[in-house]
Amino acid sequence: MTTKLVEDTEKSKKALKRKIEELGEELGYLQRKCRELGIPVLIVVEGWSAAGKGSLINRIIQPLDPRGFKVTCIASPSRDEQLRPFLWRFWRRTPSANRMAIFDRSWYRNLLDDVVDGKLDEQEVEKMYSDIRFFERQLRDSGTIIFKFFLDISKKEQSVRLQALRENPNTSWRVDDGVLARHYKYDDYKSASKRMFKETDVKDGAHWRLVDTTKLLPASVEVLETMVSLLKNKVGKRKKGIKFERNIPSSELPSFENAPSLSKVDTSLSLDKGEYREKLKVRQQKIHALHNELYRLRIPMVIVYEGWDAAGKGGNIRRLIEEMDPRGYEVIPVSAPNDVEKAHHYLWRFWTEFPKAGHLTIFDRSWYGRVLVERVEGFCSQSDWKQAYREINEMEENFHNFGAALVKFWVHIDKDEQLNRFEARKENPAKLWKLHDEDWRNREKWDLYEKAAEEMFLRTHTPFAPWSIIEGNCKRYARIKAMDVVIDAIEKKVKEKT
Amino acid sequence: MTTKLVEDTEKSKKALKRKIEELGEELGYLQRKCRELGIPVLIVVEGWSAAGKGSLINRIIQPLDPRGFKVTCIASPSRDEQLRPFLWRFWRRTPSANRMAIFDRSWYRNLLDDVVDGKLDEQEVEKMYSDIRFFERQLRDSGTIIFKFFLDISKKEQSVRLQALRENPNTSWRVDDGVLARHYKYDDYKSASKRMFKETDVKDGAHWRLVDTTKLLPASVEVLETMVSLLKNKVGKRKKGIKFERNIPSSELPSFENAPSLSKVDTSLSLDKGEYREKLKVRQQKIHALHNELYRLRIPMVIVYEGWDAAGKGGNIRRLIEEMDPRGYEVIPVSAPNDVEKAHHYLWRFWTEFPKAGHLTIFDRSWYGRVLVERVEGFCSQSDWKQAYREINEMEENFHNFGAALVKFWVHIDKDEQLNRFEARKENPAKLWKLHDEDWRNREKWDLYEKAAEEMFLRTHTPFAPWSIIEGNCKRYARIKAMDVVIDAIEKKVKEKT
Repeated sequence: MTTKLVEDTEKSKKALKRKIEELGEELGYLQRKCRELGIPVLIVVEGWSAAGKGSLINRIIQPLDPRGFKVTCIASPSRDEQLRPFLWRFWRRTPSANRMAIFDRSWYRNLLDDVVDGKLDEQEVEKMYSDIRFFERQLRDSGTIIFKFFLDISKKEQSVRLQALRENPNTSWRVDDGVLARHYKYDDYKSASKRMFKETDVKDGAHWRLVDTTKLLPASVEVLETMVSLLKNKVGKRKKGIKFERNIPSSELPSFENAPSLSKVDTSLSLDKGEYREKLKVRQQKIHALHNELYRLRIPMVIVYEGWDAAGKGGNIRRLIEEMDPRGYEVIPVSAPNDVEKAHHYLWRFWTEFPKAGHLTIFDRSWYGRVLVERVEGFCSQSDWKQAYREINEMEENFHNFGAALVKFWVHIDKDEQLNRFEARKENPAKLWKLHDEDWRNREKWDLYEKAAEEMFLRTHTPFAPWSIIEGNCKRYARIKAMDVVIDAIEKKVKEKT
Repeated sequence: MTTKLVEDTEKSKKALKRKIEELGEELGYLQRKCRELGIPVLIVVEGWSAAGKGSLINRIIQPLDPRGFKVTCIASPSRDEQLRPFLWRFWRRTPSANRMAIFDRSWYRNLLDDVVDGKLDEQEVEKMYSDIRFFERQLRDSGTIIFKFFLDISKKEQSVRLQALRENPNTSWRVDDGVLARHYKYDDYKSASKRMFKETDVKDGAHWRLVDTTKLLPASVEVLETMVSLLKNKVGKRKKGIKFERNIPSSELPSFENAPSLSKVDTSLSLDKGEYREKLKVRQQKIHALHNELYRLRIPMVIVYEGWDAAGKGGNIRRLIEEMDPRGYEVIPVSAPNDVEKAHHYLWRFWTEFPKAGHLTIFDRSWYGRVLVERVEGFCSQSDWKQAYREINEMEENFHNFGAALVKFWVHIDKDEQLNRFEARKENPAKLWKLHDEDWRNREKWDLYEKAAEEMFLRTHTPFAPWSIIEGNCKRYARIKAMDVVIDAIEKKVKEKT
């Protein structure tokens, strides 16, 4: 290089560094604003080995308040994570409202590896892509800002960098056989990532930004500029009170023809004690055996109990699990979210409770609270609960894609029966604890809840997770019917697996 | 058997079953009372393979509200758990104030296995026992009720049961090689468990109850009676408003002679810009390299930052981590506990954040809040903060026993300097966000905080986790000094490990 050129390079380096510092200051300010306004930020850094992911992440976090972000390095899933749907470990790590989550590799990592290594058939690849699209859209729709960067270098450049890393005794350990194998398969990864961009690029939301990192300084400027400009825009809008609120037309709402309706429920169905005892015994033994089958075949199962107050959900659940091995199931009572849950996406707390393959989780009330109590009581906005139908179907489809058995119960009683039970609870000191003022208040809104329930059936009665109405005026009848549904669902899954 | 004998046995069976039902009802009632009163309950079920742990747990939970308990089956630790102190995975699972946690095997499992297999030397065994004693006592002292059952059968009985399990195709899979090997080593386990009882039996608190389970019905009655009688007693006391509150005499409080004192701090220490820049660069590079060493040698590290408001903790932390790989550290800002944290032992949230071996966690404020802000503001009782000194030392000793490097900073400024900084923040719009009303209120209680800090140094300046005072009137000086302490601490650990 001539002296002139060297000087120019030095000058431009200095200019770039100054630029980086300025952008950093802006980014630090915007991070604080996002915290104040409760905007979660999620940053995905994908790219080639040795493309400079670590250095770039360092540039991003340098100016940030270290108390407001978390960098997660995504390796292969642990044993525990392998027993869950592949997005489980990422859902668990989605940022809360005042945090920034930075992923060094992400949900795309294993997808790319598995595609290149031919471990997935076309149908599986498509399912993964649709699961990912659902995931990112759901986060966006709840206000999370997503950045996706892909750090790009040529095969030749990668070769040079890997060589340099190998020659330095302090860094040679970073170049393991996996890295070398991926370098060898550069072209396969190239075409796999092309498809990845196509399948998951969403303008105004989850746009992929290819960043050429052959030179780190200009690459850093590019990344920081991207972040600053988008965050500034979002913070500005939010400050002006513009909140994301869509008017979702009915035509966009899912609906299922064969959905059950409460108007058709025969509440007179009943069972006498003798018949009940006999049937109960047979079914409990069967369920005990089938529960073992689930474990042996590594099938996860989710059972949702919804229904009116005093419908007998608790007693129904107890009979169902009575003969099961307690190490293989868990009952999750769902009530109002706590602070931590409130700071996350409303589905976060349910995702995190998803059972390990081979285990059963019973939700006593569930994510359907979004379209029932939260809708009726106005705890969320209209667009929130309207968009929830699709989101819930997507989450359940996700579980289904992973091979889970899903059962959803609405335990139904009529309004008179509820009154009888409330009165009985009031009289009986041993049952009084079950009755709350809230129960009476909810009862006054019976019609609104009924309307919400009917719409819920219509919009979420999917083929992979249909609703079962349990006629509950006779508790004995309800228990036996619920068991029959569970037995059917397990037997179906067991058949599929064997 | 003669007809008479058969009749008698049937009669007594019926009587036992009736008894079990009665006790179950009482237990269900007591479970609800414990929830209402916020009493956490922890039940450990240890014992021989095939002694009937599963059946017994089923008896316990049968009458319980399924929404109020959780059964955890303890297997060998996962990879992630192996990278933490052995009690980490149990601390995470300690019950919150309204839950009952039932452990099918527990923290005693691996201890027994390792002792029998000769994997631990005497010193390690002793450390584990003392860690366990600390653990159980800390839970008790915060109001958790602990039951420890050991289900006992003879070697001969075990042999018969294992044979029966093996012959049944539905249960033969439960008798794996590990079970058979442990059966073979019955006598070794017998003597190991004898020592276990001796080391960890605490009357009125964590008493071991040996239950002969040769016959399940009388054994169940025994277990249920034990639970009902103790819970009744505790619930009764709590209802009468008798809360656990000890008057801890000074003689029982730990104290360390060489503890630092704020009165001796030389706040005039300073560094000029030029010297600072030079030193900073050298140290950041060194820390970068040492941070890598921690990772390679799998040494976990914890750094605690305490100190006055506006002492410069945030800036100090930022300089410390500036050149570290962001995938190897995490900064945890500690403020008031959220709902979930409040429902647990006050150390629970810190235990759960303990770094993986090879990682660094920096706590910006910490568990010392108990003896600082919680003491001064009256957020906990006098006996709470007094007993905390010992508990904190024990927790840190636990970390130390696991091989962690521990550094504790008090960043110190004098009262005038704090005022200057508050005023400067008020003037500077870019820094105004750092100043809260609370800061002014805390300032008014300077003397009380000073007293609390001095006592904290005196009582927690242990040889394995000493305090370092950082003179902070000159921020540059403070940053360099903190780095030097960190460098020393890492180098010491690295030396020990190589």
